[in-house]
Amino acid sequence: MRRYVTLGVSAVAILLLGSVPQMSQPAGQQGMPGYSAGNADQERQWEAKFKAIPQPENARSYMQRLSAHPHAVGQPYDRDNANWMMNQIKSWGLDSHIETFYVLMPWPKERLVELVAPNHFTAKLQEPAVQGDPTSNQQSEQLPTFNAYSIDGDVTAPLVFVNYGVPADYEELERLGVSVKGAIAIARYGGSWRGIKPKVAAEHGAVGCIIYSDPRDDGFFDGDVFPKGPYRPADGVQRGSVADMPVYSGDPLTPGVGATDPNRPIPDLKTVPVITKIPVLPISYADAEPLLRALGGPMAPQRMRGALGLPYHLGAGPAKVHLKLAFDWKIRPVYDVITRIPGAEYPDEWIVRGNHHDGWVNGADDPLSGQVAEMEELRAYSELLKQGWKPKRTIIYGAWDGEEPGLLGSTEWAETHADELQQKAVMYINSDSNTRGFLNVGGSHTLEPFINSIARDVQDPETNVTAWQRTQAARIARGAGGGGAPDDGDQSPAEQRREARTRPDLRIGALGSGSDYTPFLQHLGIASLNLGYGGEANSSGVYHSIYDDFYWYTHFGDTTFAYARTLAQTAGTAAMRMADADLLPFNFTSLADTVKMYVNQLKTLDRNTRQQIEETNRELQDGVFRMVNDPQHPTTPPQAQAAPGPPLDFSALDSAVDRLTRAARQYDQAVASHGGGGSGEAVRRVNALIIQSERKLLLDSGLPNRPWYRHQIYAPGFYTGYGVKTIPAVREAIEQKQWAEAQQNIAKVAGVLQAEAQLIEQAAAALQ
Amino acid sequence: MRRYVTLGVSAVAILLLGSVPQMSQPAGQQGMPGYSAGNADQERQWEAKFKAIPQPENARSYMQRLSAHPHAVGQPYDRDNANWMMNQIKSWGLDSHIETFYVLMPWPKERLVELVAPNHFTAKLQEPAVQGDPTSNQQSEQLPTFNAYSIDGDVTAPLVFVNYGVPADYEELERLGVSVKGAIAIARYGGSWRGIKPKVAAEHGAVGCIIYSDPRDDGFFDGDVFPKGPYRPADGVQRGSVADMPVYSGDPLTPGVGATDPNRPIPDLKTVPVITKIPVLPISYADAEPLLRALGGPMAPQRMRGALGLPYHLGAGPAKVHLKLAFDWKIRPVYDVITRIPGAEYPDEWIVRGNHHDGWVNGADDPLSGQVAEMEELRAYSELLKQGWKPKRTIIYGAWDGEEPGLLGSTEWAETHADELQQKAVMYINSDSNTRGFLNVGGSHTLEPFINSIARDVQDPETNVTAWQRTQAARIARGAGGGGAPDDGDQSPAEQRREARTRPDLRIGALGSGSDYTPFLQHLGIASLNLGYGGEANSSGVYHSIYDDFYWYTHFGDTTFAYARTLAQTAGTAAMRMADADLLPFNFTSLADTVKMYVNQLKTLDRNTRQQIEETNRELQDGVFRMVNDPQHPTTPPQAQAAPGPPLDFSALDSAVDRLTRAARQYDQAVASHGGGGSGEAVRRVNALIIQSERKLLLDSGLPNRPWYRHQIYAPGFYTGYGVKTIPAVREAIEQKQWAEAQQNIAKVAGVLQAEAQLIEQAAAALQ
Repeated sequence: MRRYVTLGVSAVAILLLGSVPQMSQPAGQQGMPGYSAGNADQERQWEAKFKAIPQPENARSYMQRLSAHPHAVGQPYDRDNANWMMNQIKSWGLDSHIETFYVLMPWPKERLVELVAPNHFTAKLQEPAVQGDPTSNQQSEQLPTFNAYSIDGDVTAPLVFVNYGVPADYEELERLGVSVKGAIAIARYGGSWRGIKPKVAAEHGAVGCIIYSDPRDDGFFDGDVFPKGPYRPADGVQRGSVADMPVYSGDPLTPGVGATDPNRPIPDLKTVPVITKIPVLPISYADAEPLLRALGGPMAPQRMRGALGLPYHLGAGPAKVHLKLAFDWKIRPVYDVITRIPGAEYPDEWIVRGNHHDGWVNGADDPLSGQVAEMEELRAYSELLKQGWKPKRTIIYGAWDGEEPGLLGSTEWAETHADELQQKAVMYINSDSNTRGFLNVGGSHTLEPFINSIARDVQDPETNVTAWQRTQAARIARGAGGGGAPDDGDQSPAEQRREARTRPDLRIGALGSGSDYTPFLQHLGIASLNLGYGGEANSSGVYHSIYDDFYWYTHFGDTTFAYARTLAQTAGTAAMRMADADLLPFNFTSLADTVKMYVNQLKTLDRNTRQQIEETNRELQDGVFRMVNDPQHPTTPPQAQAAPGPPLDFSALDSAVDRLTRAARQYDQAVASHGGGGSGEAVRRVNALIIQSERKLLLDSGLPNRPWYRHQIYAPGFYTGYGVKTIPAVREAIEQKQWAEAQQNIAKVAGVLQAEAQLIEQAAAALQ
Repeated sequence: MRRYVTLGVSAVAILLLGSVPQMSQPAGQQGMPGYSAGNADQERQWEAKFKAIPQPENARSYMQRLSAHPHAVGQPYDRDNANWMMNQIKSWGLDSHIETFYVLMPWPKERLVELVAPNHFTAKLQEPAVQGDPTSNQQSEQLPTFNAYSIDGDVTAPLVFVNYGVPADYEELERLGVSVKGAIAIARYGGSWRGIKPKVAAEHGAVGCIIYSDPRDDGFFDGDVFPKGPYRPADGVQRGSVADMPVYSGDPLTPGVGATDPNRPIPDLKTVPVITKIPVLPISYADAEPLLRALGGPMAPQRMRGALGLPYHLGAGPAKVHLKLAFDWKIRPVYDVITRIPGAEYPDEWIVRGNHHDGWVNGADDPLSGQVAEMEELRAYSELLKQGWKPKRTIIYGAWDGEEPGLLGSTEWAETHADELQQKAVMYINSDSNTRGFLNVGGSHTLEPFINSIARDVQDPETNVTAWQRTQAARIARGAGGGGAPDDGDQSPAEQRREARTRPDLRIGALGSGSDYTPFLQHLGIASLNLGYGGEANSSGVYHSIYDDFYWYTHFGDTTFAYARTLAQTAGTAAMRMADADLLPFNFTSLADTVKMYVNQLKTLDRNTRQQIEETNRELQDGVFRMVNDPQHPTTPPQAQAAPGPPLDFSALDSAVDRLTRAARQYDQAVASHGGGGSGEAVRRVNALIIQSERKLLLDSGLPNRPWYRHQIYAPGFYTGYGVKTIPAVREAIEQKQWAEAQQNIAKVAGVLQAEAQLIEQAAAALQ
């Protein structure tokens, strides 16, 4: 579901690694954390067998079958796919069943966008079939282009261009004297989760919102368009949810509980927090161009201008638009395919792995390129089981439905089984789209060394090095973390290279949202990883359109399905290595190191925010804005801001981080002296503590104004959606200049970290 | 002639300024350096009278007259304008005459650009008349669109897109496996002096060069196009010289001497160093689009892509182009209008002031917006003279012809009068185009405090503050030096703000080339200033096209001509304040401070260049390039480079800068104790030394491979053309990784600075 499409930041994003004095580092020569020497040997043998099983041609045939027809929530082929997968999995001798939930899922009934002044134009709102692409002509089966969970509406108003439609854009518009009050905002895709755009537009008084795909972001600016190349053609449209996901994910009507009632009555939609306040519709750039061309008013600031051949004016005027939308607001079923491989030794310790299977249309890249890997992982496990492999822990695979509209299947399943999951779940491993290139990892930093160890043991199919080495090389070559790693702070390229070369593990990114890990990680506190390969084949141009299909994927994606195998090897090895471990291979030093980095970032943010306020106030007082004003293109000075008072007191966080760091070191030493293998009582007790370690990072009261999100280290930003905010209760308070709240939240997060440190101290003591 | 059009860097570039604890700083409350108290009072009175005289309506009427017809070198209206100006000036009672030179100035006889594969298209090469714009239809009088000093040629070859066509672009192309060998390079305007593009293309083996105006750089990307807005329309073409100006300026056939012979024979053009090696022609983006659309091959890297609605491929193939050019290669006359106001006290000390009068077509903005100010300055002086003003020194005004093809009129005049100028010239003040906004200043840093003092005494016409205050405010607001100030180093925005608020003088930029100061400053060593207002009205979109005319200027330029008056006040006050001074108000502490900054930059450049070589070599050795290579879009690793050896030894430069700094401080103290006024023998002796102070910064042998350029602190970059390279002999050697030469040149420049320090010591001693 999630895409990194903005700012040329490709998917070479969240990377991996391990300590290497040389660039070439032989895999598996350094023991296997959490395993006794004997068990490690045995595990390596099973893993080697496992990795030999997944086959590209199988991945290809699954994708062909599953993408043969559109399969969105509520469509017949969505259910058909779920049944087919369950039956396949059963045919391999595994225990698989379907769990069904009943969620609010609107389909459009009426869609109209027309320019009514200064001239008339009616948007086509239709993606044409492409010759040679055999599924692009399944028009009767395709859901129309729309944004799920837009409210109904019928508005006619002046148009205003708002760039990506994030808060910073509105600040600039205000300086230029442009307001969306009473207007329809036209935003381009990118720069945030799409649901942020109508949310922020409504906060600023807009009455409607149109979102279009600018060719600057995923169209001809990047290369030839489909079908000649992979990029978005003029009439391609990005469907997608606009639910206010940073408030909660899942069925809009049942936050926190499973949506198991097919006959749930539908309340007044205005009372549902995650449904948009104003109507919103996505359009193509062919449909957007006449609207943008009709705009007058000031020029958009340079950074806001796209790639259409026109001057990007902001409006308002003379363009006036009529937007009319109506949806059917039905309860529709979602079908999660749940497969369980029972654990032989610790059946009540669960490794959960998931990928979604629903697509907006044919969904070859998104989500099937990840789903087909999951299928091959299960087939490989079934082979291993026949050969005598007995995983110590229970492995549960979910093929989630309804991820696209709002992580529906995963969230409802996680909420339904919340108690059991919080008791038993060790780890959740997610994947979604997958193409060619470099391994991207985001996740819980307690798992950073673990996933680095996995990547060291997987071969990259395009080079003769490991996935880990290739990803390290990318970090060195590009000297930049890229998208998805905003938590890497402000390292210079030289510092990033140095770190990639010398740090014991390549850093992994923190998770925001945009795929099915969110309910597990951020609602339930289950340590999570999100894995995928990418960076060489860009699928953003067909994302959520009818062109994301088998034809596209086999021409422009992972065309040989080599990386489907690699993803299966990576995620499958991760699941089995965690399932088979003696002592669960979590690492708290990585967590402490990362949290310390976040706290330092908060200090910098606090300092910079205060300095910026003081600078602006000083410039206002000195008349700088008046003196630089161009009378022929006047701008409004920014508002004077309240002086922020003394800097925040971070000492509570500093103390907590210190204790966390000491506890983690203690635990490392205890593991080293213990050896980490075996299955004695101490190991069992420590494993029980480790399973709870991510849960300790939750607060029952959740985040400010969004109690469903309980994780105090990782959350999607309230105004970014995809983009992570680390230590969000403090970070967002500073960003919003709510100093008193920021100070209170420092205390709360410090308390959470103290509790985490205490748990680690207990684990260290138990092991000694 | 020169434009800052690239990278959104507007003309708020090279700024000015003085020590102010408060933002508001009353003008003229701190004495007048170089003046006794009594003389300062008198001077202020004359200056106040002077500043009251220039009138916007006069500027407007001069421009209307001078831009009524095309007036390029060799055209009848060019001579007509010269005569008219001379007669006007004479009518004010001043001594004015025309000096004529005879230069090589080719006009096009044949121009053809056609796409011959994969489809056929013939470029129009014609700018259409625009309804409502009364001079745009003077087709029979307009020089066709062409680049002056392109060689003749007739080539058919594959096309390759080379972005701006500077060396760094070719390095990237090589990594992508794209070569221009045997090809026609198509470059976009911007990023360098245009003559660099065919020069570098030829160095890489190209057989032809096409330059087009991408709408990203001066077209619809920036705003509405002419006649709706000021920006370049689809068929607009930027004419211009492609002579290799960084080798020498002026008549291509007579470097170093005046071109006074109308019957000079024309040699084999291949032997003329500044004529291009390959044929080159500018075209519009309407003509470029079909060519670019026909290109295949790899995508251009993101930073190279323009604003046309197409994927920017690099080629080569399948596009093949036929380029045919022939020129008439005639000797044509240039007419400099020289006006002289004799000095009453020191007639052999000259203040020279210039602006050019020739345009590529009607040339309203370029150059007449500056020329009309010069006219009003002369008219004002004539009034003052009638009222009894007696300038101490001789003031010489030049209205130069032939600047556009290559600073012809100014260079030939400077070369003809070289001996006398080197003896007598105190300062040269240049201007060229002028619009609305902020004062931009580049020049000799000995004049930094002087021009700051002038700017403090000029009112900005759009605000109620001085030009100095407004420019300081812009520096604070933008926190960045902007274009033309590469010598400001790598200051952060906060550092730039701090400096703008606290430094005794706002920094001025160093001069590269692109207007008539070059022969005075860089060939003859005359301390120079280049002045202009801009940043609010952008004329880049009509630059060197038929649309740079009176209609454009009165709709989109300095429409009220308020800034024509302000420029006249600024440049005119500068000339008279220098002419009337007792002690010439040069400042060597500013020079020492600036040179020290340059030396520090060189050290950083040396360190960074070595580190970059080591990093690349390390990555090559470690196989990083191989590991990150995408087999479906392969790239070539960079070449391994010779290890650079030990860092350069900068001690000779450090010692010289130390001595310079001490000498400057001594001189400041001597001036302070002396008072700086009067006309005693000491002052006369010191003035004689000061006049020679910029000359001391020359080396007779000139710069490596370009002896005509003799200044050792300021030069146009060999591979930038417009952009300055400070301490060029050292800087360019480091950039070219010629370490031994760099070390030798450090010694040479140190010698020059020692000689400068000695002169200053003598001046200090003379004054004590």
